[in-house]
Amino acid sequence: ASHQIATRRGLPKEKMSENGIMSRAKVLTIDTMNPTVKKVEYAVRGPIVQRAVELERELSEGMKKPFAEVIKANIGDAHAMGQQPITFFRQVLALCSYPELLSDSTFPEDAKSRACRILQSCGGNSMGSYSASQGIDSVRQDVARYIERRDGGVACDPDNIYLTTGASDGIVTMLKLLVCGEGTTRTGVMIPIPQYPLYSAALAELGAVQINYFLNEEKCWSLDITELQRAVNEARQYCNPRALCIINPGNPTGQVQSRQCIEDVIRFAAKERLFLMADEVYQDNVYAEGCQFHSFKKVLFEMGPEYAETVELASFHSTSKCYMGECGFRGGYMEIINMDDEVKDQLTKLLSVRLCPPVPGQALMDLVVNPPQPGEPSYGSFIKERTATLSALAEKAKLTEQVLNTVQGISCNPVQGAMYSFPRITIPEKAVKEATETGQQPDMFYCMKMLEETGICLVPGSGFGQKDGTYHFRMTILPPTDKLKILLNKVKEFHQRFTQQYS
Amino acid sequence: ASHQIATRRGLPKEKMSENGIMSRAKVLTIDTMNPTVKKVEYAVRGPIVQRAVELERELSEGMKKPFAEVIKANIGDAHAMGQQPITFFRQVLALCSYPELLSDSTFPEDAKSRACRILQSCGGNSMGSYSASQGIDSVRQDVARYIERRDGGVACDPDNIYLTTGASDGIVTMLKLLVCGEGTTRTGVMIPIPQYPLYSAALAELGAVQINYFLNEEKCWSLDITELQRAVNEARQYCNPRALCIINPGNPTGQVQSRQCIEDVIRFAAKERLFLMADEVYQDNVYAEGCQFHSFKKVLFEMGPEYAETVELASFHSTSKCYMGECGFRGGYMEIINMDDEVKDQLTKLLSVRLCPPVPGQALMDLVVNPPQPGEPSYGSFIKERTATLSALAEKAKLTEQVLNTVQGISCNPVQGAMYSFPRITIPEKAVKEATETGQQPDMFYCMKMLEETGICLVPGSGFGQKDGTYHFRMTILPPTDKLKILLNKVKEFHQRFTQQYS
Repeated sequence: ASHQIATRRGLPKEKMSENGIMSRAKVLTIDTMNPTVKKVEYAVRGPIVQRAVELERELSEGMKKPFAEVIKANIGDAHAMGQQPITFFRQVLALCSYPELLSDSTFPEDAKSRACRILQSCGGNSMGSYSASQGIDSVRQDVARYIERRDGGVACDPDNIYLTTGASDGIVTMLKLLVCGEGTTRTGVMIPIPQYPLYSAALAELGAVQINYFLNEEKCWSLDITELQRAVNEARQYCNPRALCIINPGNPTGQVQSRQCIEDVIRFAAKERLFLMADEVYQDNVYAEGCQFHSFKKVLFEMGPEYAETVELASFHSTSKCYMGECGFRGGYMEIINMDDEVKDQLTKLLSVRLCPPVPGQALMDLVVNPPQPGEPSYGSFIKERTATLSALAEKAKLTEQVLNTVQGISCNPVQGAMYSFPRITIPEKAVKEATETGQQPDMFYCMKMLEETGICLVPGSGFGQKDGTYHFRMTILPPTDKLKILLNKVKEFHQRFTQQYS
Repeated sequence: ASHQIATRRGLPKEKMSENGIMSRAKVLTIDTMNPTVKKVEYAVRGPIVQRAVELERELSEGMKKPFAEVIKANIGDAHAMGQQPITFFRQVLALCSYPELLSDSTFPEDAKSRACRILQSCGGNSMGSYSASQGIDSVRQDVARYIERRDGGVACDPDNIYLTTGASDGIVTMLKLLVCGEGTTRTGVMIPIPQYPLYSAALAELGAVQINYFLNEEKCWSLDITELQRAVNEARQYCNPRALCIINPGNPTGQVQSRQCIEDVIRFAAKERLFLMADEVYQDNVYAEGCQFHSFKKVLFEMGPEYAETVELASFHSTSKCYMGECGFRGGYMEIINMDDEVKDQLTKLLSVRLCPPVPGQALMDLVVNPPQPGEPSYGSFIKERTATLSALAEKAKLTEQVLNTVQGISCNPVQGAMYSFPRITIPEKAVKEATETGQQPDMFYCMKMLEETGICLVPGSGFGQKDGTYHFRMTILPPTDKLKILLNKVKEFHQRFTQQYS
């Protein structure tokens, strides 16, 4: 630093290195980079996951650890946990990738006809062509028909469907449209706490104001309208609340919203003039008895024209979750309701800069919304595979809740839906103190210790947000049942050991 | 409007609709949306392409037009123009999509071994798993080895490779990192004029300052250092120039930079402390005799440690162009040289929010950088297919230049590389006047007329930027030779008719 020479901008420009070569200071440094990017945090792939990857490397290099393998229960990555893809989906993708297979008699006819339909919608009949920026026409038509079936006949216009690169892409794009203003007129966006950290990350990057509303842990992570009201009232003092994000079924919290709750939320959004964003990527992941998925779109339309014709809504779906779990293909769609026409043109223009979502992901999305039908040759195996996956998930949701609730100091709400448990954990005072002294969140300290001792990789609750003084972790329910049992037992033992150690 | 009630923020809140229902004003309107998004323009998919799509629909509905089909020569979409995919690539993708095919004896062994290697690098051996945010390890290793071969042995560290969702994703991400400051300290980014409009669109969205440097049309669109110097000197009056973007081979201009020019650019970047961004997605598309692709990375390292150890460089590649033309898969990578370690951590964190690039695109990128080798069963057919595509492109590049230069009022530089011609066109005064009166750019007026009369869809030069008072269009050289001949002839006839009409 002593060799630095100031430039006319007052920044260090050059320094003499040890070998005598004039070396330049970097153009791009942590101090001169985009400040909003620095504010971004994403716990699901944060420091604990980086440590897990290191541990895996150390194990593979023969280093001794108190465990034989690292189990990544940090992310909803079904196939990585051994879930098998739906055979029909993969057959069609293979046919689309290499159409010479269309003359292979071992492929079922329905797979071939789906592949032909997709290829006919691609320029030059190739998945290697760009699609329209909004997505392939025929896929958007299939999505619209799927939504109509799902929502008991409520009409869906394919023009309102935009295919996306996973749901994340759609969510970020919608938030991007909404951001404007400065100071107290800056756009504020309401998000649940706990939340999926894509939201906080995107808002930080966009420089929007994050408005927290707390889910009610005591009532199984349900959403109270009084809490929404409190949050928006307070927020109006310092920003311009313009959007309300809902995750249903909940991530990381696993709750499934009642129809009544959704109606109340819609009324609230109308009253407070908020753009609704409904993250519904877990719409097939509902396990608890008495729970049912209701789409915001359906409820909105059933509330009559006063709402159906006015409330602005974007809802999001993806190929990554549910029974298919095809995260790597980055497929997804969003449906836009009541969006201003000029804004829609702007949205289409904005999407065109990135040309198009990945076409294999679009093809996969098409298969998800248009799976084999009764009478088609692949129908039986499709239903069997889908049912097996969803039944196993339901079983694992129950198992996770049950085992965790046998541990003193862990309290777990029912996993009604989605793919995660988010139990509350009691961390002894002494551990909180030690964590604080080393500059860590207490639940990060807890999860790091669990990783080092057991090889289990969880995400601390602080990465999702939680009420002050409470601690949680998020754990996926995805490992195969046998492995999940071992994992839960290890968590139990660790918690007991940890509690004892710090008591 | 007369029924509007003002809110406390002074915005219209509600109005009575004709049927008496209170209807709310939209939350999100053109006036209340993100102002930077409104500034984004992207001509390659702009109004002219929307009209082309409309015309296609009208034709399909039986409407009479003066042409039988719309020919989209607006975008570098090779497969849509009939180019065939590389068989080996698609075989491997089919195997990765549906691994049951690994036991199919009709697939060559080298395709199977590539597929196995890719699948072994995927969680749960499935392309449906998320990859690491930076991309699959083994793919990044293959990319590094490819770069080393391409650059005559210059070392490449896989840790510097980031897989991306097409090259666009990488370019936007890098620009995002670079943006900071306000007013006269706001980040400025130098881009060529004419440019590929991803750059101007991204800079508008990020609110960065676009600094134009003009390519020299008289010298075959070459890059003059004196022009770079002029541009940066002027820009220092009103912003903080921090990055210099180069497109080589050029898009839309088709020039291939000499080694000497690249050296000069690197020296300039070092002297002016600019982060270099080298868009090299057309690296295999070099046709003109005496022209050769030199990567910025290679030249940088051959200039010795004073440059090799200091100049910050990001270079970009993609699966979308060259001989493969696999746009729909959205595969790509970037290599980052001399980036500050803390910034690199921030980059990795930022990418993690979007989880990962599409895995099929990553697999395809792997095949591009690791194609069949001599002695492997698919080597012969791979070389044959690749050579056929590249030879045809070289022939079409020459043909395009030759035919266009036979037209009085059209003057076309040699298409040394890439996939486009960008000829200069003379537009008669009367036509310029009529265009200006109807609020159109004269070359937009020209291209729109050509589309309506011939069905040929080109992009006006104003969408890429050009010297004031000059007019151009961009036309891809991708249509099959027979079709290209017809197309060029139609362009010729149209230009003559247009010139006559407005003279």
